[in-house]
Amino acid sequence: MQELLPTEQAIFDQLKQQISDVYHHYGFLNIETPIIERSEVLLAKAGGDTEKQIYMVSKTAESADSADQALRFDHTVPLARYIVEHNNNLAFPFQVTQIGRNFRGERAQRGRFREFYQCDCDIIGREKLPIAYDAKVIACIHDALKTFDLPEMNIRISNRKVLSGFLTAIKTADKAAEISNIIDHAEKVPLEKSRAALEELRLTSDQVEKIIAFMFTNGSYAEIEAKLTEIIGDLTPVREGLNELEEVFDILNSIEGMSDIIIDFMIIRGLDYYTGTVYETFLKDYREIGSISSGGRYENLAGNFSDQKFPGVGGSIGLTRLFYVLNEQKLLNTETSAPVDYVILPLSSAEYSSAIKLANQLRAKGNAVDIDFDDRKLGNKFNRAAKIAKYAIVVGSDEAASGNYQAKDLATGETKPLAI
Amino acid sequence: MQELLPTEQAIFDQLKQQISDVYHHYGFLNIETPIIERSEVLLAKAGGDTEKQIYMVSKTAESADSADQALRFDHTVPLARYIVEHNNNLAFPFQVTQIGRNFRGERAQRGRFREFYQCDCDIIGREKLPIAYDAKVIACIHDALKTFDLPEMNIRISNRKVLSGFLTAIKTADKAAEISNIIDHAEKVPLEKSRAALEELRLTSDQVEKIIAFMFTNGSYAEIEAKLTEIIGDLTPVREGLNELEEVFDILNSIEGMSDIIIDFMIIRGLDYYTGTVYETFLKDYREIGSISSGGRYENLAGNFSDQKFPGVGGSIGLTRLFYVLNEQKLLNTETSAPVDYVILPLSSAEYSSAIKLANQLRAKGNAVDIDFDDRKLGNKFNRAAKIAKYAIVVGSDEAASGNYQAKDLATGETKPLAI
Repeated sequence: MQELLPTEQAIFDQLKQQISDVYHHYGFLNIETPIIERSEVLLAKAGGDTEKQIYMVSKTAESADSADQALRFDHTVPLARYIVEHNNNLAFPFQVTQIGRNFRGERAQRGRFREFYQCDCDIIGREKLPIAYDAKVIACIHDALKTFDLPEMNIRISNRKVLSGFLTAIKTADKAAEISNIIDHAEKVPLEKSRAALEELRLTSDQVEKIIAFMFTNGSYAEIEAKLTEIIGDLTPVREGLNELEEVFDILNSIEGMSDIIIDFMIIRGLDYYTGTVYETFLKDYREIGSISSGGRYENLAGNFSDQKFPGVGGSIGLTRLFYVLNEQKLLNTETSAPVDYVILPLSSAEYSSAIKLANQLRAKGNAVDIDFDDRKLGNKFNRAAKIAKYAIVVGSDEAASGNYQAKDLATGETKPLAI
Repeated sequence: MQELLPTEQAIFDQLKQQISDVYHHYGFLNIETPIIERSEVLLAKAGGDTEKQIYMVSKTAESADSADQALRFDHTVPLARYIVEHNNNLAFPFQVTQIGRNFRGERAQRGRFREFYQCDCDIIGREKLPIAYDAKVIACIHDALKTFDLPEMNIRISNRKVLSGFLTAIKTADKAAEISNIIDHAEKVPLEKSRAALEELRLTSDQVEKIIAFMFTNGSYAEIEAKLTEIIGDLTPVREGLNELEEVFDILNSIEGMSDIIIDFMIIRGLDYYTGTVYETFLKDYREIGSISSGGRYENLAGNFSDQKFPGVGGSIGLTRLFYVLNEQKLLNTETSAPVDYVILPLSSAEYSSAIKLANQLRAKGNAVDIDFDDRKLGNKFNRAAKIAKYAIVVGSDEAASGNYQAKDLATGETKPLAI
């Protein structure tokens, strides 16, 4: 678990607030689903590694076998349950954000925590959802990340329909899962290893070379269309996916202030979840920290819970991990100002009521104001104040009588009359 | 568990933000402790009913017996662990706030939820902590509640040292736990029932009458001192508690805009936790909804974890329950404005880029702006917009070309030119 000191927490909270503000400015509505869900809801979607990582919950009094509750491991499964349960009271397309903690009993490793914040935004349609929303989610998350004042980003997008159309075109659709997995990991291993993995699938050498050419296909829409034509000739099998990619690419490129967008067929995003657009975001000069946000389109959010079809598109910022890696790379602005504006130091209890009055005047102007009632030496009080605040104000009998206060800048030591 | 629709959630979020802002303005530093704690940490302090209500946590792969983790049931126990763990990096007195969810497997009942928000503020000293901080915590929580725009409040304060001094004075200190419990419940039962319960403790009738007189002692400091003298004569056994009460009472009364403060010896706040000041806050005309905030002084926060002494004082707003009861009593301002300011309605994909440009201009001014890319009829889009937003803006080819937009007020139907 991550646990921060107050100064680090203030930076974390500020970043979380910035994400929340941008999501709000994009018109997303906030909801909070419970952290504890019925385990059957969570297990219906989990599968594989995730299932092993789920935290089960039981009351002390009960035996563990009776445990039918668990901690959510992401926001998506509770969202699916929420949509099915409340869909009559929601306005579709439903633009929704969830910012909160999720839980996975992962093996402890650098930057991975068992309790972690995810900041999700999703747009859910009823029956259908136009592809322009895919661009909207990506643009929104991009704008949220831009508030972090990070080095240059680029956004790599792909489309799962292009991948599956391509595999059909080269007659390898029956090995789609294995091939997807190899492409998904290609960036982290030498090319020869990916090639060897493909060869182990008993593909022809022509198929292997085409897959390798495919996974290194990236660039603008015009570029990838030309490259794909070179590889498979007739584009009919990938046409639907290409049209979607083109629309998303064009919309994103039309937005002023967008970072580089490239289409990149190496982007896969896991195996069985996404059905159309997929994207990942990277810091250009910090590829080693991996994707800082990702997401995509899923054709049916609530297939496990409902006969109604709820197509959606979403993206997520894994804030706990992101905070950790940005901190490690010294990419966080840790020079944020002290969390408290003024610490007021009454010299004796005779000045308490003046100190309180002064504090409330400063608070009414939006300042964070602490009063130190402690009876230690003034020097000790100044030391404490310097750790948390910008200014200190001593309130003695003279100041209380005259109402003229001096604010001492705790960074420079400079003292100036306080104007209220 | 409570789960809110987006419009209710927006009200809840707003109240949470108001509390957080006031805590911040009072100079409290925010921290977040993990939701999952080692169960030995939690069980060290729980005891009684609370222990039975703790949610144990285990990974699916593990047997339940190995479960050594649990969900926090309040913020105080994790805070104690945090202080002991990080005390070398904290500035004391440490003013700290925690706003987050806690978990208790309580029997389901109206307004009680198993997953609930608590908004705590605490001030922790090292070795000692002046009594003025007790007033500060109460004033801070009072100001936070004032932002809710509620009917008149009053704050009832007492001091556990007065209670124990009084019980010593009338020679009933050996039955302190039972008597405290009877006083604690006296408000909810007829007087004769409290009297009968006291008589069952084999007290003399003089002792019984003195306890009853004590528990109905309330008013200003001068008033309660006079009444207490009538009951027990010599005030020496209660002097320390009275001095503390007087200081807290005087400071609170000196603050402009404070609600009624009364000293009231019927306020007990449970049995084994608090050691000095205790307080509860009520809505004068809605006593039936119970206390809306409470807290007090504890002489040693971390006695279970450390040899160092960390005296503290804290208060808490149980926001989930408070939201529920205020909503039920129609005391919430549910007329909050729509969460979205503008919904932009492009008539075709040819206007998408104009719509996005317009949206970003409005967002840059702090507005929440949604773009509806859906391909349903315009009437349906207006219906959706009216559910979430204040204004709708249609973007057709004319508007896109001229840059002249009309904003339709979705409440009144009125249309006005949009000034950007």
